[in-house]
Amino acid sequence: MTPNRMTPDVLVNGQPTTSLPIDDRGFRYGDGVFETIHVCAGAPEFWHAHLQRLRLGAERLKLAWPEERRLTAEAQQLLAGSVDGVLRIWLTRGPGGAGYRPVAGQMPTRILRFSPSPAAPLSDVATRGVSLRVCQTRLGQNPALAGIKHLNRLEQVLAANEWDAPDIEGLMLDPSGNLIEGTKTNVFFIREGNLITPDLTQAGVAGIVRKIVLEEAAHTDIPVAIRPIRLAEALAADECFLTNSLIHLWPVRDLDGKAFAIGPKSGEFSRRIAARALKSRGF
Amino acid sequence: MTPNRMTPDVLVNGQPTTSLPIDDRGFRYGDGVFETIHVCAGAPEFWHAHLQRLRLGAERLKLAWPEERRLTAEAQQLLAGSVDGVLRIWLTRGPGGAGYRPVAGQMPTRILRFSPSPAAPLSDVATRGVSLRVCQTRLGQNPALAGIKHLNRLEQVLAANEWDAPDIEGLMLDPSGNLIEGTKTNVFFIREGNLITPDLTQAGVAGIVRKIVLEEAAHTDIPVAIRPIRLAEALAADECFLTNSLIHLWPVRDLDGKAFAIGPKSGEFSRRIAARALKSRGF
Repeated sequence: MTPNRMTPDVLVNGQPTTSLPIDDRGFRYGDGVFETIHVCAGAPEFWHAHLQRLRLGAERLKLAWPEERRLTAEAQQLLAGSVDGVLRIWLTRGPGGAGYRPVAGQMPTRILRFSPSPAAPLSDVATRGVSLRVCQTRLGQNPALAGIKHLNRLEQVLAANEWDAPDIEGLMLDPSGNLIEGTKTNVFFIREGNLITPDLTQAGVAGIVRKIVLEEAAHTDIPVAIRPIRLAEALAADECFLTNSLIHLWPVRDLDGKAFAIGPKSGEFSRRIAARALKSRGF
Repeated sequence: MTPNRMTPDVLVNGQPTTSLPIDDRGFRYGDGVFETIHVCAGAPEFWHAHLQRLRLGAERLKLAWPEERRLTAEAQQLLAGSVDGVLRIWLTRGPGGAGYRPVAGQMPTRILRFSPSPAAPLSDVATRGVSLRVCQTRLGQNPALAGIKHLNRLEQVLAANEWDAPDIEGLMLDPSGNLIEGTKTNVFFIREGNLITPDLTQAGVAGIVRKIVLEEAAHTDIPVAIRPIRLAEALAADECFLTNSLIHLWPVRDLDGKAFAIGPKSGEFSRRIAARALKSRGF
């Protein structure tokens, strides 16, 4: 708890607490979905887009959907008096069921948590760029789980454990060698004036800022392609950048020894994302 | 808690409790492994084999390994005065880390739970057999996670949610159409006198009773093959059976409309498993 706030940091089904019952299926099986939301000056960015993806994830997992105004009210309670930080929302299937088989119609467990931002989180990375490296850990393919932000994240944990430098992001491939995403970011390439990003119908998380980039690209004269990408094609790109809800956009300075230009397109998308984020602030 | 026992039902790092901190990585990412152990007359079956697999899973995930005598002492405390039931052991990476990236060398969280058995759980299935049906949900391939019993179980949850009859087990395939396992069981086929079971190096959980079956087969004149199996080959089998630590062995009476013989081999392995389980009881 931050010392100057009187609000709780975690709400589970509306109650201040810091723990979860052992029999919650979120713990037992990773049976749930979550969102990681950037909070600026006490206001969430892209709130409606996050809720929409949470709902899509719930539908895919056949989780019941809680009242949205309740989720909103709980988020508002948690952010009251806050400044900058991260709001996380988890929705799990709750306790019960016969082993893996869930109980039909059960209301999910809602968990909301606010964490104040760490001071000066890698601010120069946004201008200097990060190094991207290919992870050995692969992302298994499963169309039923692709695109949503579910709680089965062991592949990302193993991949993130492959290196320990803060300015390196791991690039994850599927078992056939198609590029999918960074361990915590989506990836974009600029090649001959085209914006190219991996198809995520078999693996990967379809990020909120990825969606914003694709929407913004439609307002420019940059042709967009969402399709399978091989490493060889990626290495022939002119620019490369990464996105997620907390960092917005990081340019990539190199991948496997191949150097990319930093800008101009990454700069343009960075400005567009920042403008959209500012406009989206609030509930 | 069962009314006639004075012992707790759950121990988390040795302390009686029923909840887990929200920031435990077992919940946040499914960052951990578990075991489901059959308890008969207060004694665990295949204790050493379960500990061995738990340890293999911990090594694969690069979890630190707790003192085995501590795990054993906690299990003994939990089973004191118990009769029949299920002992579950979870080992998670605990709290902390920078997002997906774990903190090096952190001691894992130990969670042990005892649940008394439900009365008469499907006792006739062991003689009548179950129906096996092919699930639409596929098992993604990942050699880094294959074989171990980790906490990322959404694929099993979705598969188990495809039907709702207690005498049907779902058969899961990988994305290329290779048979891997049941949603909660391993699968074996008998064809022309050979015992065949899927290769689990790309997906699936290598069950304790599966290991026992393979060990016992070596004491018979039945040739064993562990390799990829397609549905067409499975449908041409003479017998089929399923195994796990709680049911030991269930014969399969049919798969997608094709009927299998119940016995004689399933009966022989059933007797051999029961004898090994009895011999293994205790710590």
